Amino acid sequence: MSAPVRRTGGRSAAVLSSIRFAVEELVRERGAEKVTIPLVAERAGVNPTSVYRRWGDAATMLNDIATYRLDPTRELPRTGDLRADLIAWCREIVEHYRKPINAALLRGGSASAGEQETECLRNRRAEGLAIAGEAGALDADDIIDGLVGPIVYRAIFLPWTLDEDLPVRLVDKVLAA
Amino acid sequence: MSAPVRRTGGRSAAVLSSIRFAVEELVRERGAEKVTIPLVAERAGVNPTSVYRRWGDAATMLNDIATYRLDPTRELPRTGDLRADLIAWCREIVEHYRKPINAALLRGGSASAGEQETECLRNRRAEGLAIAGEAGALDADDIIDGLVGPIVYRAIFLPWTLDEDLPVRLVDKVLAA
Repeated sequence: MSAPVRRTGGRSAAVLSSIRFAVEELVRERGAEKVTIPLVAERAGVNPTSVYRRWGDAATMLNDIATYRLDPTRELPRTGDLRADLIAWCREIVEHYRKPINAALLRGGSASAGEQETECLRNRRAEGLAIAGEAGALDADDIIDGLVGPIVYRAIFLPWTLDEDLPVRLVDKVLAA
Repeated sequence: MSAPVRRTGGRSAAVLSSIRFAVEELVRERGAEKVTIPLVAERAGVNPTSVYRRWGDAATMLNDIATYRLDPTRELPRTGDLRADLIAWCREIVEHYRKPINAALLRGGSASAGEQETECLRNRRAEGLAIAGEAGALDADDIIDGLVGPIVYRAIFLPWTLDEDLPVRLVDKVLAA
């Protein structure tokens, strides 16, 4: 989640979880481009105002929920073996987008992208830099052009090519260049 | 255009041109995700059936029209200097997506991608292979992961980073790897 998670007891967590469930269900049923905030609120049984207050618009909501499973506070692979760590990290992203629901949410979010950086991109770039930036091995452009960009491009346009070998191939190329 | 262009005189060319104009106008006004075939037909003053017959659905229409300006029959840069040719080719793609209308059409198309390869991707990969494949310098994955993927990713999510230096940077990385 990109919004700061406040621990206000079970109520807000339950609301969030029912919204998330409603979004995933509606994306599966209708496709991300047809999911609106009123629809989500109705399905989740919450007031539309609380959905608008949290995300502002449907695109932001979809982008945020699409990144949910790649929790930016999760532990990153840090064995000290740069190549192995980058491969493990790319594998997480590939695994994430191999789930059709996540790829669908990504496509829905991409339809409304382009105004400002997405939370998702910011998180992934920060993670890549945390793994490879300190060593001076890769900069932000290497991470975007060499790893995140190709994986996301394939997730959108060629989802059936998100295979086991992709992380190894991309990491070996980006480290060789 | 991906569909074979039949030279049936001026009539069908005029219809196509009015459809194209209607699509571009509607995308600018409403955003690609809200452009439907009935809307386009109405604006273009043609029968919806002829639009459906040509493209089948709105996503295919948008993808096709988004690639219009990158005519797959145009002459490719072929000076014999591989690096220079690849840079010139990437520059064409970057220039194409720097036009906001083309980036908007790309985002609209990406919302419905993922079922099969887009015509656009097929054309770009074939072009890349025509320039760099014969020399054995690059294969299809190099072209997707090293050139087309990062450019399209940036066009969707970071359009303000489609700068002059990007083609040089990408080509130098892909040739070094």
